[in-house]
Amino acid sequence: MAARQQLTPVLRRLRLLKISPHTARHTGLQRTLTPPAARYLSSTVPRHFQPTGPAPAAAQSKLTSETYPDIKRDPRFAQLTEAHVAHFQQLLGTYSAVLDGVTRSDTADDIEPFNTDWMRKYRGQCRLVLRPRTTEEVSRILKYCNDNMLAVVPQGGNTGLVGGSVPVFDEIVINMARMDNIIEFDEVSGTLVAEAGCILEVVDQFLATAGYIFPLDLGAKGSCHIGGNVSTNAGGLRLLRYGSLHGTVLGIEAVLADGTVVDDLCKLRKNNTGYDLKQLFIGAEGTIGIITKVSIQCPQRSPAQNVALFGLSSFEQAQQAFREAKGQLSEILSAFELMDDGSQALVRQVTGNKRPLEDTYPFYCLIETSGSNADHDSEKLQAFLEDVMEKGIVADGTLAQDETQIKSLWAWREGITEALSHLGGTYKYDVSIPLKELYQLVEDTRARVDEAGLLGDEDEFPVRAVVGYGHMGDANLHLNVSTRRFDERVEKVLEPFVYEWIAKRQGSISAEHGLGVMKKKYIGYSRNPTMVGLMKNIKTTFDPNGILNPYKYL
Amino acid sequence: MAARQQLTPVLRRLRLLKISPHTARHTGLQRTLTPPAARYLSSTVPRHFQPTGPAPAAAQSKLTSETYPDIKRDPRFAQLTEAHVAHFQQLLGTYSAVLDGVTRSDTADDIEPFNTDWMRKYRGQCRLVLRPRTTEEVSRILKYCNDNMLAVVPQGGNTGLVGGSVPVFDEIVINMARMDNIIEFDEVSGTLVAEAGCILEVVDQFLATAGYIFPLDLGAKGSCHIGGNVSTNAGGLRLLRYGSLHGTVLGIEAVLADGTVVDDLCKLRKNNTGYDLKQLFIGAEGTIGIITKVSIQCPQRSPAQNVALFGLSSFEQAQQAFREAKGQLSEILSAFELMDDGSQALVRQVTGNKRPLEDTYPFYCLIETSGSNADHDSEKLQAFLEDVMEKGIVADGTLAQDETQIKSLWAWREGITEALSHLGGTYKYDVSIPLKELYQLVEDTRARVDEAGLLGDEDEFPVRAVVGYGHMGDANLHLNVSTRRFDERVEKVLEPFVYEWIAKRQGSISAEHGLGVMKKKYIGYSRNPTMVGLMKNIKTTFDPNGILNPYKYL
Repeated sequence: MAARQQLTPVLRRLRLLKISPHTARHTGLQRTLTPPAARYLSSTVPRHFQPTGPAPAAAQSKLTSETYPDIKRDPRFAQLTEAHVAHFQQLLGTYSAVLDGVTRSDTADDIEPFNTDWMRKYRGQCRLVLRPRTTEEVSRILKYCNDNMLAVVPQGGNTGLVGGSVPVFDEIVINMARMDNIIEFDEVSGTLVAEAGCILEVVDQFLATAGYIFPLDLGAKGSCHIGGNVSTNAGGLRLLRYGSLHGTVLGIEAVLADGTVVDDLCKLRKNNTGYDLKQLFIGAEGTIGIITKVSIQCPQRSPAQNVALFGLSSFEQAQQAFREAKGQLSEILSAFELMDDGSQALVRQVTGNKRPLEDTYPFYCLIETSGSNADHDSEKLQAFLEDVMEKGIVADGTLAQDETQIKSLWAWREGITEALSHLGGTYKYDVSIPLKELYQLVEDTRARVDEAGLLGDEDEFPVRAVVGYGHMGDANLHLNVSTRRFDERVEKVLEPFVYEWIAKRQGSISAEHGLGVMKKKYIGYSRNPTMVGLMKNIKTTFDPNGILNPYKYL
Repeated sequence: MAARQQLTPVLRRLRLLKISPHTARHTGLQRTLTPPAARYLSSTVPRHFQPTGPAPAAAQSKLTSETYPDIKRDPRFAQLTEAHVAHFQQLLGTYSAVLDGVTRSDTADDIEPFNTDWMRKYRGQCRLVLRPRTTEEVSRILKYCNDNMLAVVPQGGNTGLVGGSVPVFDEIVINMARMDNIIEFDEVSGTLVAEAGCILEVVDQFLATAGYIFPLDLGAKGSCHIGGNVSTNAGGLRLLRYGSLHGTVLGIEAVLADGTVVDDLCKLRKNNTGYDLKQLFIGAEGTIGIITKVSIQCPQRSPAQNVALFGLSSFEQAQQAFREAKGQLSEILSAFELMDDGSQALVRQVTGNKRPLEDTYPFYCLIETSGSNADHDSEKLQAFLEDVMEKGIVADGTLAQDETQIKSLWAWREGITEALSHLGGTYKYDVSIPLKELYQLVEDTRARVDEAGLLGDEDEFPVRAVVGYGHMGDANLHLNVSTRRFDERVEKVLEPFVYEWIAKRQGSISAEHGLGVMKKKYIGYSRNPTMVGLMKNIKTTFDPNGILNPYKYL
């Protein structure tokens, strides 16, 4: 980066405040590529509570059917028999493609990982896992299941956060991991076609060799499947720059409940011939079909990257800074993240790291730029920083000077989740709110918890802090309520208050995590009855027997 | 632009070749903002033939029902009565909201523009035009129509190219022009909410005052409605940069056939709560509901713009140039257009203008960059041009030095349609093909026409030229067959050959124009029976009586 050579007086002052490489190397926080391992049993806590803390290694999570006693097994679904298993064994041929817990008693340990989500918050009772290797196999599996009323759960990398990728009862798991071929990549157009079971990071590394990137990046990239990403309409870190999967996915191949293969594996950017049906599958969480292949438009990789972090006195100023960043950094802006002081104080408390800025501020923003020319990008970023400091929008800031410092600054944003997990249980809400009121939710929630006498520094108060952070560029807020212990009063103060607050602002109760089991009941806070009714029509049209991922979504 | 001050030796040579401002002012071709007026009667030519040439001002086009005698009026639909008209008059109140040709005989001239498309290629027989001003009015109109089996045609700016926005028989036209309010714009997030009848250019000019642009630009911007843009999933000039409407539209409000108002007017970038139903309405051409409001993500306006045009020896090199442009210009690349020499020769022949480059080449590419810093952009573009010339990818090129030259260079691309229209009738195909084979269609078609003895420079040959040009960045080709006169042999040589050729490459027979009446029958060339079957299910689910835009689309 050419930043060093071109510093202006304002920026020279900035540099005095920058974190040293030494500090950066010892932050102990890394840009997390995989979700932190769950450390807690959910058996003792209520279902909306995000459990944390150390957990006995061999302990079993509570069954989802126990956590949600109001969900009953649908009696229309058949019970698995030896004949069913024999059919699937013949169909899939190899032993490794069928994990059989129906006729064998020694497979429980093998099947367990397919029954449990990575947070160990949801746990199903499936006794049969099928691992097809071709679309044809998926088709034959589903046709048989549909004919025999056997419920199924499509499963990708099983990195979801709402219990969507594991069974509730004895649904058959159809795990897509063996469909992991990259089918083709066109280096001129940037169009990639790959099977659903490809791991995001593997695909991204493949694209890197050709100078491209996958237009999606998220913490779970080392485990999640691109089929799962599309099925859950994953958002992540690159959305601000490259837009949502609804814009970048060009086509899909999917298998319907009755085994019909829907070949919409279009590789074209423009195709106005009829309803864009693939869009329904994007974010459907496997409820209307199983995505088997994906065609997607990949952007060129940007060779230059810069990261800056700055402090602001108010949320009003954070909005001004965002507006200026969009205007001045425009085409090179690739992330604009917001952190409140509460969240940064928790990171500091847990890591003991020196803060990047000398003083503390009510808000911090992290800006990332990605472009094709490092000198140009540095120049733009410096001009922007000078401008916002001169205008008094930004109180103080620092610009990363190398890759280590870039990681270190990102750690103050991405380390929040981990820091919270060290401190006790957390109520987590992933919401979208119109930008103007984005932070108001945190303030109103904090005031409400405080008024109820539940918030304080001393151990007698169950709530340690109410903090907010998130993808400001996408109006996506993570509201986190950090607690010292479970206290029923806290949940009563929070819910349905938070959902009602969001509904009043026409926000979304699930910005990027989806519905799954967790938010199935709350869809009404973000969608009106007309919309939900139409969605139910769609579900019935595509899956009349309801065998696909039951008990979830709608 | 700083281009002038920073020219390298290679570029100094380039500048010698640049068109002079004088030449530019006299090209006679302008960047067309509105579609050229139609000049021909379609009564004497077959339906797939794009008619051109002067037409008597008061002449009447041929009725669509005559051009397509195999389309019969659906007898399930009721005939309009005085009682129906009286009901609508009471409902909409003002006289100007109801153009009544049922009980009055003096309204034929007023109604005619609503019956005829702008090319005067399609003409319906509607006798009632309704012009609602609110969603509530649209709802009440549709409920009544659905209850009384009255077919309707939703109509925006009526600038479509496939006959989708005018009636075929006596369908009631619901014209949206009076719903033209901009409802709100958030200057921080860039989210615009506006009524469907807003004219694209008006909205774009409104956004300009706030430093934003509408993420869509097209020739018909002075007339087309944003509701129509969304309903037809318009592509246009900015798609390469800002992606399709499937990615930028955040929400819609629509009215279903039975009058149900679907309020999905989400203003959030992220909302993973159920099926993304709005996507079905994007590109549905008014067949499942009438879009009444749109919420859309608008990007910041780029202050700097550069345009270059260069000559290449082969399509292979055009692909290489595109690849290099994506890599080196990356985030500032806003257009990459392809023109073959045949198309440029026609422009030269009609306008008599001096070509921008001294020599002729088999292919020409036009590159546009849009960015936030003029100096940076010029530097990138110059470095790119040096690089592609040094590598021998590009044979010669010119860089526009001012706004006049920018317009002049664009005229060589955008003037093709107008040039063709001066020379006789044209068979026009708007198709998507995987990039590698994009131009092969032109070569194969030309060879086929030639082999049939139909192509030649002398008047005895009905075909003057087979040319190709288009949005190379989007793999969207316009194949044009320029003829001297109508000759049945030409149509037989072209069809179904072109559609079959496209189908074999899994291309799209309609990249951006949609299906309408014109391509309803050909959807099978781009969509398999499974997809078409699912689409028909969707249509039935949303519009069981089939009153919305009948005889079209599927």
